[in-house]
Amino acid sequence: MPSRKKKTVKKVRSSAPDPHRELARLVVEAKAASQVLAQVGAEAKNRALLGIAEALLHRQEDILFKNGIDVEAGKAAKLAPALLDRLTLTPRRIQDMAQSLREMAALPDPVGEIVEESRRPNGMILQKVRVPLGLVAMIYEARPNVTVDSAGLCLKSGNAVVLRGGKEALNTNGALTAVIHDALREAGLPPAIVQLVPFTDRELIRDLVTMDQAIDLVIPRGGEEMVRSIREMATVPVLSHGRGLCAVYVDKDADLDMAEKIALNAKVQRMGVCNAMETLLVHKDAAASFLPRIVRLYQEAKVEVRGDEAVRRAAAGVRSAVEKDWDTEFLGPIVAVKVIGSLDEAIAHVNRHGSHHTDAIVTRDAAAADKFLKEVDSAAVLHNASTRLHDGGLFGLGAEMGISTQKLHARGAMGLKELTTTKYVVRGSGQVRE
Amino acid sequence: MPSRKKKTVKKVRSSAPDPHRELARLVVEAKAASQVLAQVGAEAKNRALLGIAEALLHRQEDILFKNGIDVEAGKAAKLAPALLDRLTLTPRRIQDMAQSLREMAALPDPVGEIVEESRRPNGMILQKVRVPLGLVAMIYEARPNVTVDSAGLCLKSGNAVVLRGGKEALNTNGALTAVIHDALREAGLPPAIVQLVPFTDRELIRDLVTMDQAIDLVIPRGGEEMVRSIREMATVPVLSHGRGLCAVYVDKDADLDMAEKIALNAKVQRMGVCNAMETLLVHKDAAASFLPRIVRLYQEAKVEVRGDEAVRRAAAGVRSAVEKDWDTEFLGPIVAVKVIGSLDEAIAHVNRHGSHHTDAIVTRDAAAADKFLKEVDSAAVLHNASTRLHDGGLFGLGAEMGISTQKLHARGAMGLKELTTTKYVVRGSGQVRE
Repeated sequence: MPSRKKKTVKKVRSSAPDPHRELARLVVEAKAASQVLAQVGAEAKNRALLGIAEALLHRQEDILFKNGIDVEAGKAAKLAPALLDRLTLTPRRIQDMAQSLREMAALPDPVGEIVEESRRPNGMILQKVRVPLGLVAMIYEARPNVTVDSAGLCLKSGNAVVLRGGKEALNTNGALTAVIHDALREAGLPPAIVQLVPFTDRELIRDLVTMDQAIDLVIPRGGEEMVRSIREMATVPVLSHGRGLCAVYVDKDADLDMAEKIALNAKVQRMGVCNAMETLLVHKDAAASFLPRIVRLYQEAKVEVRGDEAVRRAAAGVRSAVEKDWDTEFLGPIVAVKVIGSLDEAIAHVNRHGSHHTDAIVTRDAAAADKFLKEVDSAAVLHNASTRLHDGGLFGLGAEMGISTQKLHARGAMGLKELTTTKYVVRGSGQVRE
Repeated sequence: MPSRKKKTVKKVRSSAPDPHRELARLVVEAKAASQVLAQVGAEAKNRALLGIAEALLHRQEDILFKNGIDVEAGKAAKLAPALLDRLTLTPRRIQDMAQSLREMAALPDPVGEIVEESRRPNGMILQKVRVPLGLVAMIYEARPNVTVDSAGLCLKSGNAVVLRGGKEALNTNGALTAVIHDALREAGLPPAIVQLVPFTDRELIRDLVTMDQAIDLVIPRGGEEMVRSIREMATVPVLSHGRGLCAVYVDKDADLDMAEKIALNAKVQRMGVCNAMETLLVHKDAAASFLPRIVRLYQEAKVEVRGDEAVRRAAAGVRSAVEKDWDTEFLGPIVAVKVIGSLDEAIAHVNRHGSHHTDAIVTRDAAAADKFLKEVDSAAVLHNASTRLHDGGLFGLGAEMGISTQKLHARGAMGLKELTTTKYVVRGSGQVRE
């Protein structure tokens, strides 16, 4: 057996470049390019973003042709329809990519922002200045728009990026990266700012996420399982999108028309996303008047309602909720509804069962709202607004980078700032330590 | 063998409480206390800080008595003199602890600070508000002042803390924590805000740093080896003090009197600390006039000078530097000196060999200074000032929490803000997602 293994290794070496070494080379090139990019001003970066946007439209034929190859192969491999849909590009989707890049160009440059400034008693001037992280690695699945969004966000924030997309989109990503490279060259920037990993072997992910001497941040975008396995392997810091088990609490003093609008929107406007509501809590004094209305609306929207005993007494057609339902992110047409005795009980339920993502209270009582906003330990808390509004775009942060439920570095909707760090800059006139 | 192992376990269980379960209990209590503390205002926290300061002075006799037991045991166990010194309390050192707490009370409260605020196009008001992390675990060695500093910093920033100090200081830490508990009770706060782990078994550290459901942050304070092993075990995020391999670059246009003052101070003012200089780079045009002066000063200060060939030609009594010297944090009376051909070469040397901690340039050329400050990728960069000035106290951040060389969440001198996170607070009037 050992000799057989050895032979295989030799064969691979002689027939193709070693992917481990090739990956290391790509990363070293990207690191060098990141040092150039860190010194580039806002104007040149914005020009490059607009250049990529234009080139995507100009070379749309070629991109769609290469995408067609991936889509055909995906059909032959019997990919799930949802996956095939995410993989498929259209002229409209390419226009959306270009538009997203134009919007990034219009955002303020985070690099160089002076976060704090003071003159110290010894006369030195101290500044805390925002600077790029350096080199980012993105690991994602089939959606080709992530390739363009990531390249754009990293470029805008002064970071080089190594892209490792799914194997289903390899031809598409190759075509997109070729367009990006040409536009970067035209803008006078090193193309190695954006590197596509041309291999999709899973074992190379381990290489990538342990290159902590070169890579400053890993961002996995994908399912919970993928994110967890990367967190476990990585020695590079990881920033990831969190699980969303979000709740809306309808207080005893809620405007019930508003509560109806919010509780419906939070659940049904889009169900498979992290900021959709999974649990509805209703104060016992509002239960009799509110529950029949909202349960009927859910039923009309084909959402299965699972409730505790009090809910089932107040409204018809409600299935009995089990303990596990309070801890489940349904991501689909099911809602768990509970009658709650007090504001304190609602807060305790959310802190215990929720995922500290996004939670809302509907009430006319300002003191109750303040208490909820203060005591619920979530990345975003809302008063009289739908959980679905917790979004980078609606928060004014530009293109979506996901929503973090971790507490260090980034919490909640992530924008360009989360792709930066800071640096202390001291200007003195001969100061020393006494 | 298996039966023997079983017996031992049984024996431990019957003679003392199981330390694993006892630790879990302490942590759960601290987590509950953290939720109370998060809602406490600045005034009550400051009153508690001042109360602890007063109680430390008032109960100094008892603290010194318990510390005496630890010091005697340390002498009997032949602890290193430096360790014994760090362990030993005196009335003066207790006064310093009290003073540090009074200074914390005078600092602005980070909790509740509105970091960003905007009104979105849909009319909702968005705030990004600073909030406590929750529960912090501190793992440290023999210095009892870390017990009081950590308790104070965490209290001020609204966090509960679990303290796991070294076994050499167990009696002292017990006495200090008893004083803190009484003062917290008197201030109307739950004593479980500050929990001392009464066990020092190493295996309990693994328990502590993997309690990621309860603990929000682990801060190890100790040697490189200890910090690395905690980083490897932890599933809780870790914030740690980094290694300092710092350089001073004397440019061709430096004021040589200023350069002498800074290069001497950075090396000799205190040698065993992370922001002390280890490498001196001198531009070739300044070498002939500057090197003889600074080398003589180092020699007078009993600092061994290791230089490259050009240095040894310019000054007498210089040992030949080997490649490894450029990568060594001496933390003592040795300095590595190199003659450099250009500013670019100096920047490249620092980025390649340094630890991205603290680096300085001495020059009268503003453009050269700006280039160095921009292109050197370190937590702090200084122009015409000593690396020793990179310090939380001198930067106005209050009591020392260490200096981070990581890029995520905290970079450089860490203050109270690094013990906080943020939360998005949205106030609406019925907004939903369209």
